Amino acid sequence: MPVVLAAGKLEPAAHTLLFVLSVLAIVPLAALLSHATESVAAKTGDAAGGLLNATLGNLTELVIALTALRAGQYTLVKASIAGAIVTNALFLLGASFLLGGLKHHIQEYNRVSARVQAGLLFLATVALLIPSAVGTADAETATAFTRKLSLGLAVLLIVAYGLGMLFSLKTHRELFASAEHAGDGEAPWPIGLALATLAGVTVLVALVSEIFVESVQKAAEAFGMTPAFVGFIVVALVGGAAEMAAAFSAERKNRLDLSVGIALGSASQIALFVAPVLVLLSHVIGPTPMDLQLWLGAVMMVLISTLTAFLVTNSGRSAWFVGVLVLMVYLIFAMTLYLLPPQVQ
Amino acid sequence: MPVVLAAGKLEPAAHTLLFVLSVLAIVPLAALLSHATESVAAKTGDAAGGLLNATLGNLTELVIALTALRAGQYTLVKASIAGAIVTNALFLLGASFLLGGLKHHIQEYNRVSARVQAGLLFLATVALLIPSAVGTADAETATAFTRKLSLGLAVLLIVAYGLGMLFSLKTHRELFASAEHAGDGEAPWPIGLALATLAGVTVLVALVSEIFVESVQKAAEAFGMTPAFVGFIVVALVGGAAEMAAAFSAERKNRLDLSVGIALGSASQIALFVAPVLVLLSHVIGPTPMDLQLWLGAVMMVLISTLTAFLVTNSGRSAWFVGVLVLMVYLIFAMTLYLLPPQVQ
Amino acid sequence: MPVVLAAGKLEPAAHTLLFVLSVLAIVPLAALLSHATESVAAKTGDAAGGLLNATLGNLTELVIALTALRAGQYTLVKASIAGAIVTNALFLLGASFLLGGLKHHIQEYNRVSARVQAGLLFLATVALLIPSAVGTADAETATAFTRKLSLGLAVLLIVAYGLGMLFSLKTHRELFASAEHAGDGEAPWPIGLALATLAGVTVLVALVSEIFVESVQKAAEAFGMTPAFVGFIVVALVGGAAEMAAAFSAERKNRLDLSVGIALGSASQIALFVAPVLVLLSHVIGPTPMDLQLWLGAVMMVLISTLTAFLVTNSGRSAWFVGVLVLMVYLIFAMTLYLLPPQVQ
Repeated sequence: MPVVLAAGKLEPAAHTLLFVLSVLAIVPLAALLSHATESVAAKTGDAAGGLLNATLGNLTELVIALTALRAGQYTLVKASIAGAIVTNALFLLGASFLLGGLKHHIQEYNRVSARVQAGLLFLATVALLIPSAVGTADAETATAFTRKLSLGLAVLLIVAYGLGMLFSLKTHRELFASAEHAGDGEAPWPIGLALATLAGVTVLVALVSEIFVESVQKAAEAFGMTPAFVGFIVVALVGGAAEMAAAFSAERKNRLDLSVGIALGSASQIALFVAPVLVLLSHVIGPTPMDLQLWLGAVMMVLISTLTAFLVTNSGRSAWFVGVLVLMVYLIFAMTLYLLPPQVQ
Repeated sequence: MPVVLAAGKLEPAAHTLLFVLSVLAIVPLAALLSHATESVAAKTGDAAGGLLNATLGNLTELVIALTALRAGQYTLVKASIAGAIVTNALFLLGASFLLGGLKHHIQEYNRVSARVQAGLLFLATVALLIPSAVGTADAETATAFTRKLSLGLAVLLIVAYGLGMLFSLKTHRELFASAEHAGDGEAPWPIGLALATLAGVTVLVALVSEIFVESVQKAAEAFGMTPAFVGFIVVALVGGAAEMAAAFSAERKNRLDLSVGIALGSASQIALFVAPVLVLLSHVIGPTPMDLQLWLGAVMMVLISTLTAFLVTNSGRSAWFVGVLVLMVYLIFAMTLYLLPPQVQ
Repeated sequence: MPVVLAAGKLEPAAHTLLFVLSVLAIVPLAALLSHATESVAAKTGDAAGGLLNATLGNLTELVIALTALRAGQYTLVKASIAGAIVTNALFLLGASFLLGGLKHHIQEYNRVSARVQAGLLFLATVALLIPSAVGTADAETATAFTRKLSLGLAVLLIVAYGLGMLFSLKTHRELFASAEHAGDGEAPWPIGLALATLAGVTVLVALVSEIFVESVQKAAEAFGMTPAFVGFIVVALVGGAAEMAAAFSAERKNRLDLSVGIALGSASQIALFVAPVLVLLSHVIGPTPMDLQLWLGAVMMVLISTLTAFLVTNSGRSAWFVGVLVLMVYLIFAMTLYLLPPQVQ
């Protein structure tokens, strides 16, 4: 772990070395992280535990995005936002269903919680879709219109996210309770130790991730991958390492509520909190204001991801094939982006 | 009330005065209306009561649209149709959920009834969407094609609406029964008095609304609002005053079936009855036949409204946050239309 | 029956005669087919019986498509694929609901089975939609990109279909069991006889269908129907005769699981097996590789059909009005295609 950070400082050009080192560093960190998350969830319930894990996990995305924002690289920022939403809502959710389904015949989870998260995601998708749908022909008015609209939408989304937290953690928290889980053999850590570990490890993962993202981007382009594929798929998968470790571990222990909470909670947090905050911050620290408008292909992918998550979590039951279906949608996106000729992106 | 009508005759240019007077006139009328609706619903059941209220309430929209139709102002007619669908399916439904949810922790309603209305709305949305999706490049053939198609679709939609009524009021009426409601303290009026009041007050509201709509339109444009915002949002909110009064009053008394019936019933009635009737009438009284084709942004808004109503009413349960989500979608539309540069519309 | 085949050989130009003869030949064959299907389903359960019927029924589509493929008529192949998906998912499903609903007040069916099929259809729709959504402007790169992508998507879809079979016939087969049906008066045939009849009659239907399709296409164009209407609606309805006979007969006997299994199973089999196999085969036997890209109108129709099937089968209950709604969507498509000016298609 310290080796990676040192190497990252000393030899920023040795991408392949950095790549291997950072993978080696992330694995034990992720294991620590998942154990800490479960210890906290044992105290707070799966919904709040999932939210905590998602929040800490999204710090990685926020750190990466802030760096790019200050440099004015808005295309990169937007690609990483859209990629993170799609990866969380499809890959993380689908892999959780699949892994859990291979071990358990049928799993039940709290559909109220999944529906609220999917509803928030749906709202964010509408906010991304409408400015493109009513778009104007005249370029100059269009820019002014989109900027003002993005600012307003950003505020709306943050308010909606706050109200969603109020609803799920305060006024209707009893709806979000998971089924009781028998002790899974390991004694949970004390809450203080668990919280401290959670925070500490997340920071370390964020630091390593940043090195990883940079090195993997260079390495991937050397392997002939398209920028769209790297931004949408590779960076998002790496940036989501912390969530994945916790979600998959919870899944194998049949705590599907925790996994679904992490997957959809992380996606909706990026869409309704991280992205709007970046729009607002771009008015302060960016060279020009950033808007919320994505290229059409990205909007379609976010829309389909949201719809898939909504339709799939509708029943509150899961088996391995549900995971396969969700992962297949993700594979279709990955394959399309991998083959896309560079000039379109 | 008579003051407004007199003032409307005498000083048609004093928009601000007319505006204030008509608001003052509508408030007591709306209160009368909601009490009459509940008295009728006490006899006929919530589904039929909601339908009756929606029908009477939509007379306002029909009167306004007929005037515009005779003048050949098809853009205004279409905007008011799309605006009325969106306002009923989002604002009225969302506000009902929110108001009811603030008073009652969790509310249950008859999901079969909501699903039938949402299904009808979905059908109408497909009818609006398909002509645009397969649209042709050649302007002249396009017009002929769209007109013939609109005529056929209008007949289809009216038939579907009629069959929906047959289903919900005749062959499967037992599915649409609401939960029993304990008497809410006020004695219901006799059915004859209630029906007469309902009809009478609706006519008065329609008369005042027409004055109101005209004055508000002028006043709103003076305040710098875009025509799209006025047509879609302001006129639709005013035109829906009768439905709103009844729906919100029912909601506060925990009669969510009545509110949902009014909101979705009114939206589907406009989409499957009022709009098709206007298309058919345009062949008789309009200068040229009117088609059903909307501008792309309006189609998207109707589509998203329908999808939102469908997804939200799927569970048959509601809490305040469901209302917030639906209202937020409405706010996104309102904000987009408010900021839209005028030349796009 | 032999008369038709002989006439088809001897007088290939007498379209009207062939038309009448082939209709006369198909009727008794279809009756045989439905009785054989039910006999098999009595042994294997409705899910497997429906799959068997769908597979045999889709042989017709495969035979027609292979002939067109070898001739390089890719537009015809694609139209018949899209038409078959839409016809199965809307007309067959809607007519089953309607016919069953007219005889039985409310019917219940296994929603797990319907959801899996609808999920597979949704996946195939995403595969059809995404290449169009991210499409490129440069024509030459576009062709290369679409071909490579279509190849990859074809493999993905076949894998998904195979996993879906594994899921429904092996690992989770208990979820797909239908309610017990009391004997319907007719003794089922022995399984050997039933299977032989099923196979034999299907081959005969396929032979007659081919003659029918050719004659109906000529006849229809003589009646002034547009090519899009003939390809999408007429050919698909005739090609689906075998499925229809079995589905409607099952429906009247209140075996809704069998009808829904045939309708959605046939649609998803065409989308996830027949279409991808044709893409793969086009690399071997076609003049140039075929891709999966449809014209925008066809993509929209497939998308709306899938969404309709998903929303409608969500509840696992049905009444006649559900059938009316689904058929109305189909009628909207048919009317649009019937009126569409020829140059657009």
